Amino acid sequence: MSTFGFEISATDNAARRGRVTTAHGSFETPAFAATATAATVKAMMPENARSTGAELALCNTYHLMLRPGAERVAALGGLHHFMNWQGPILTDSGGYQVMSLSDLRDLTEEGVTFKSHLDGSRHELTPAKAMEIQHQLGSDITMCLDECTPFPATEEEAALSMRRSMRWALLCKDAFRPRAGHALFGINQGGVYPALREESADALKKIGFDGYAIGGLEVGEGQESMFRMIEATAPHLPLDKPRYLMGVGKPLDIVGAVVRGVDMFDCVMPTRSGRTGQAFTRRGTLNMRNARHMSDPRSLDEQCPCPACAHYSRAYLHHLFRAEEILGPMLLTWHNLRFYQDLMRGLRQAIGEGRLKAFAADFAARQAEGDIEPGDQKDRALG
Amino acid sequence: MSTFGFEISATDNAARRGRVTTAHGSFETPAFAATATAATVKAMMPENARSTGAELALCNTYHLMLRPGAERVAALGGLHHFMNWQGPILTDSGGYQVMSLSDLRDLTEEGVTFKSHLDGSRHELTPAKAMEIQHQLGSDITMCLDECTPFPATEEEAALSMRRSMRWALLCKDAFRPRAGHALFGINQGGVYPALREESADALKKIGFDGYAIGGLEVGEGQESMFRMIEATAPHLPLDKPRYLMGVGKPLDIVGAVVRGVDMFDCVMPTRSGRTGQAFTRRGTLNMRNARHMSDPRSLDEQCPCPACAHYSRAYLHHLFRAEEILGPMLLTWHNLRFYQDLMRGLRQAIGEGRLKAFAADFAARQAEGDIEPGDQKDRALG
Repeated sequence: MSTFGFEISATDNAARRGRVTTAHGSFETPAFAATATAATVKAMMPENARSTGAELALCNTYHLMLRPGAERVAALGGLHHFMNWQGPILTDSGGYQVMSLSDLRDLTEEGVTFKSHLDGSRHELTPAKAMEIQHQLGSDITMCLDECTPFPATEEEAALSMRRSMRWALLCKDAFRPRAGHALFGINQGGVYPALREESADALKKIGFDGYAIGGLEVGEGQESMFRMIEATAPHLPLDKPRYLMGVGKPLDIVGAVVRGVDMFDCVMPTRSGRTGQAFTRRGTLNMRNARHMSDPRSLDEQCPCPACAHYSRAYLHHLFRAEEILGPMLLTWHNLRFYQDLMRGLRQAIGEGRLKAFAADFAARQAEGDIEPGDQKDRALG
Repeated sequence: MSTFGFEISATDNAARRGRVTTAHGSFETPAFAATATAATVKAMMPENARSTGAELALCNTYHLMLRPGAERVAALGGLHHFMNWQGPILTDSGGYQVMSLSDLRDLTEEGVTFKSHLDGSRHELTPAKAMEIQHQLGSDITMCLDECTPFPATEEEAALSMRRSMRWALLCKDAFRPRAGHALFGINQGGVYPALREESADALKKIGFDGYAIGGLEVGEGQESMFRMIEATAPHLPLDKPRYLMGVGKPLDIVGAVVRGVDMFDCVMPTRSGRTGQAFTRRGTLNMRNARHMSDPRSLDEQCPCPACAHYSRAYLHHLFRAEEILGPMLLTWHNLRFYQDLMRGLRQAIGEGRLKAFAADFAARQAEGDIEPGDQKDRALG
């Protein structure tokens, strides 16, 4: 079993290219995790999700503790065996979903008690309990229990919330059982207040973690604020540990965050969008339900090697979504994951070659171009 | 482009083993078609459906004429290209779904006019129109337009209905445009009346078709009546043409029909059941939603090489269905299709080796055994 580690192989200004090693193999950074909320990447066979380039899976503690239950997953051999995922798994602490999904939350200094959104059963999540559950799940990267500070929040509210999360972070560190190749990440909070973000980074650094997450963003503050908060945080985190921006984001959010020194990402966007008919392409997003695709023989993205693009027309994808056929979500999830992983590959390569700035500018320009209309003969000839 | 043909390589009493050759490749018989109603095997990538052993796909004319439309499919290169299915495709005539799904049907000697169940738009299906639509779709095996005689029906009603279907069969033969490797099948009707079945078989034989279907069964008459109708029909069909029992059926229905000389089958059962959590196994059917699977580490069927059985526990499959995850239908559809195709392989091999009777008896005995309980240690040790 290998030791948990992070090796940086190249930097480009604040951006870094590297590799994180865990008990279940390694993943290259900047990395985008495949979201596997309930121990499945929705609408994907795990081997197909991996084939897109996703090396890290993210599972949600809140969902799994309620169903099928962490003890049951442990008895069945842990998450990797349960869901047939051979690579590294990161689990969140469950705190975020408790706040957003459960009924009758009661948040105190000790933790949070809540009622399950599934059956109303009563549960408790404390820093120690969050560590225990993630241990039972067998995750390679365990996240501290924190409170995702709501947005908007006054500076005082954000400070109180962040400081409690920092006290919880210390309790998590104490409760976490170190094992070779298994990591515990702290989570930076502080709302949209740079001084609080810096205070939080210092508090986490003092406790000492294997990696550092930036939490409480992509909650309505906007891209500009998000980038400012990364700039207020990243320079205060240890250079030699991975940095993880939780729940982010849109392709251009990711590019901007990588430029600012972030190494890891997760977001439901590619998988969730894939199920509703939204496709990410080099020229921006498309809605495959739109009638303009109804008779279009072209592939979704002629540069993409995924099955949706290699073997099917836009007209067929449109048909699948109109007919509410499961193959629509299957193909579009595959495509979107592939698009995100291709973006990460491009970012890693650009950092390695010291041309991240040009890559980022080119990517943004292409995204802004928008899709070519079906009637454009030049594109048809290229397609 | 090959000629349409049927070669029999072995017989075992009334049962036959053979191969049907079409413009898009061949399939071994007895064959079970993968149902691809709306130009997709629901919840399956087509290459995975083929990997189970399914060589023939069945698409539904009624659904495709309404959405995306037969002209559109033709403009997009035909069904094979549209849905990325490289092998033979059989299309039904649309008649059955018109009767069961559409609103405000008006059935006359000329054909049937109806309102779409999707948008209320008005459509007409005549023998000539059914041939034209299937031509536009590009199917390898075209089915005559017929009326699936309702059950129950008096002998007089069944006779009137059957005789009109026979007049339509002649009009279909006239309208069908012969092309190398493309076949037209007639459909036998006659309800549960042996004399009508024989009269229908003689009428079809007189017109002359590339294959002969037995229709109007598995509509509530029961297995015994169904087998009697096959016995009343098959001996009156040409020996050297494939025989296709439409819409059948459960595994033991298929075994009994093969014993009685049927070569081709289709049924939504494996795919539809797979989406609702029902699994077919060598020891009968299981409902994966049942709580008894909740903590069961065993595979669904330890003898099955499909991904659902090779890589996952019953507990995981149960979890997927409880959590309404798309991967549940994906895995169970795959398993069920594989189970059906393994059954067909077993039947073909048994015919080839002249031991069909023993195979059928053994298969029925295993099906009747039922699933082993989770607590049975002997099975755990074997598992």
